[in-house]
Amino acid sequence: MKKQILNFQNVYIQASSSLVGKKEFEGPLGNEFDAHEMDEYFGKKSFEEAETEMVRRNLNLLLNKGRCDFIDIDLIIGGDLINQCIATSFAVSETKVPYLGLYGACSTIIEALICSSLYLNGNDSHKKTIATSSSHFCASERQYRFPLEYGSTRTPTSQNTVTGTGAFLCTNQKQTIKITQGLIGRIIDKGATDANNMGAAMAGAAADTICRFFNESDYSLSDFDYIVTGDLGYEGNSIVKELLSLENIDMKDNFYDCGMLIYDKKKQDTHSGGSGCGCIASVLSSFFINKLYNKEAKRILAIGTGALLNPNSVFSRRSIPSIAHCIVLEGD
Amino acid sequence: MKKQILNFQNVYIQASSSLVGKKEFEGPLGNEFDAHEMDEYFGKKSFEEAETEMVRRNLNLLLNKGRCDFIDIDLIIGGDLINQCIATSFAVSETKVPYLGLYGACSTIIEALICSSLYLNGNDSHKKTIATSSSHFCASERQYRFPLEYGSTRTPTSQNTVTGTGAFLCTNQKQTIKITQGLIGRIIDKGATDANNMGAAMAGAAADTICRFFNESDYSLSDFDYIVTGDLGYEGNSIVKELLSLENIDMKDNFYDCGMLIYDKKKQDTHSGGSGCGCIASVLSSFFINKLYNKEAKRILAIGTGALLNPNSVFSRRSIPSIAHCIVLEGD
Repeated sequence: MKKQILNFQNVYIQASSSLVGKKEFEGPLGNEFDAHEMDEYFGKKSFEEAETEMVRRNLNLLLNKGRCDFIDIDLIIGGDLINQCIATSFAVSETKVPYLGLYGACSTIIEALICSSLYLNGNDSHKKTIATSSSHFCASERQYRFPLEYGSTRTPTSQNTVTGTGAFLCTNQKQTIKITQGLIGRIIDKGATDANNMGAAMAGAAADTICRFFNESDYSLSDFDYIVTGDLGYEGNSIVKELLSLENIDMKDNFYDCGMLIYDKKKQDTHSGGSGCGCIASVLSSFFINKLYNKEAKRILAIGTGALLNPNSVFSRRSIPSIAHCIVLEGD
Repeated sequence: MKKQILNFQNVYIQASSSLVGKKEFEGPLGNEFDAHEMDEYFGKKSFEEAETEMVRRNLNLLLNKGRCDFIDIDLIIGGDLINQCIATSFAVSETKVPYLGLYGACSTIIEALICSSLYLNGNDSHKKTIATSSSHFCASERQYRFPLEYGSTRTPTSQNTVTGTGAFLCTNQKQTIKITQGLIGRIIDKGATDANNMGAAMAGAAADTICRFFNESDYSLSDFDYIVTGDLGYEGNSIVKELLSLENIDMKDNFYDCGMLIYDKKKQDTHSGGSGCGCIASVLSSFFINKLYNKEAKRILAIGTGALLNPNSVFSRRSIPSIAHCIVLEGD
């Protein structure tokens, strides 16, 4: 079989930053995030502009943490859930930095880190890139489901789009944390059609990527301190474990999902957990990266999962194809 | 100043293919395209499914021309204009090939070729990728402007979204045509707000990328047989020439725009010319690539231009930021 794992020799993370909304700040990981904003409009006039403002602020936060300026950055790569990915493009539009827009639904931050790594790995001169992704609960509800004013009820399997963003400053100059491998996902379509159960739709893609990774790599499950999916939620997490056990991969207690970690299941009314591009982006760039910095972890496998639907494809009763990309992060 | 041009040592085009709609087939380049379809539904039930079917067929056409199968392909990279880029993702979903979704508006095919090149250039083993992009007039009208049934009239500066797709089979094994350089664009926002004049909005980005390219590279204008923009149309083409002349870059008669080439200005009612992801994708993958194969040209600079708007950003009176990426194609 052809090897498809990408090996990176000199790709490092120099800094990361996260910025979340009120609900995410009030959740169990509240203190892990670099910043939060209690106003869901982020001081702007619409939820879409709010998301742009959130990303813009977080990019500035990232540069502060990395002690550099936009002039030092060679490339920004990222995307979001808003139609035509305008949250990110408006946020980047004044930076004068070369930009590649991506659409990978909620897997976008991992796709951005893989593309960053491809760019940095082959480059002989010193380069810096930024990978970024975001989502905003109110903007997503309006676009994908119903305007919030309708006050519509939700099914138990539905997830709560995270208001949050995460960004990574990557470089090919030596740093403490390294991106050593990446695996680009294949689209998996098992015929799921329930847009209120994206965890189920994405579980197949997550299982496929995890299987492909362990089939190709020399690592075993226990080589990782954390194996982290993006936003499968409670429903998707139980399905992916079942799918993997059929392939004789039995996930142990080092298997986590950012969508299950970001909210308090009992106190916060978020059904099957968190979702959205901002979910894994904010949790990976804070909680899990901090584990590597604090030497509480040495190696993390991060799997971003995305459901490739749009509201019209759901109305047209088309299925929900999904995708999952993964990367390996290693500490010193 | 930091050098941002990317140099590729071993990135080749093994094959390319194009498939267009009725109007494009009836235009001056009609015989250049590999295939066409007279039914705007492509035998499907909706325009969105039609676009998916168009991309799916063209990918198969590409594999035929390149004499290989999906199992030989390591990566598909691409995107389109439909919300959440579902035209491409549905078309790819049964291929079982790793996939990276992009959003670069009408610059997407050039972005896809740059990302393909980054992937192939750094890879020691033999790899093949596909770069693809598409647009469909009827699907775009419904999404960005009005349903066709409204029969709304258009302004003279408006452009006609091309129903078409183009794809490239890229490899790091030696072939006749080579991708030697790439330059990733920066977002340029000069405050344009007229969504019926995208040429004007994109002209600033095209001028910026062309300036940056000739400032950094050792080439002069006359080193290229063709310098080709994607879909500025008549309006945008005249603006970009003016902007470039202010920078002492005087475009000569080797400067073309795919949006101006694809339709007959007098006989086809397309106002300022063609636009859409499928415009440069279909024209570059046929008409211009054929010039290289036939040795009528030795070196081409292809500049894809994209307007990063969505319908809501226009209604909210936000400006239209734009971007342009470019690549250098060389024949034997």
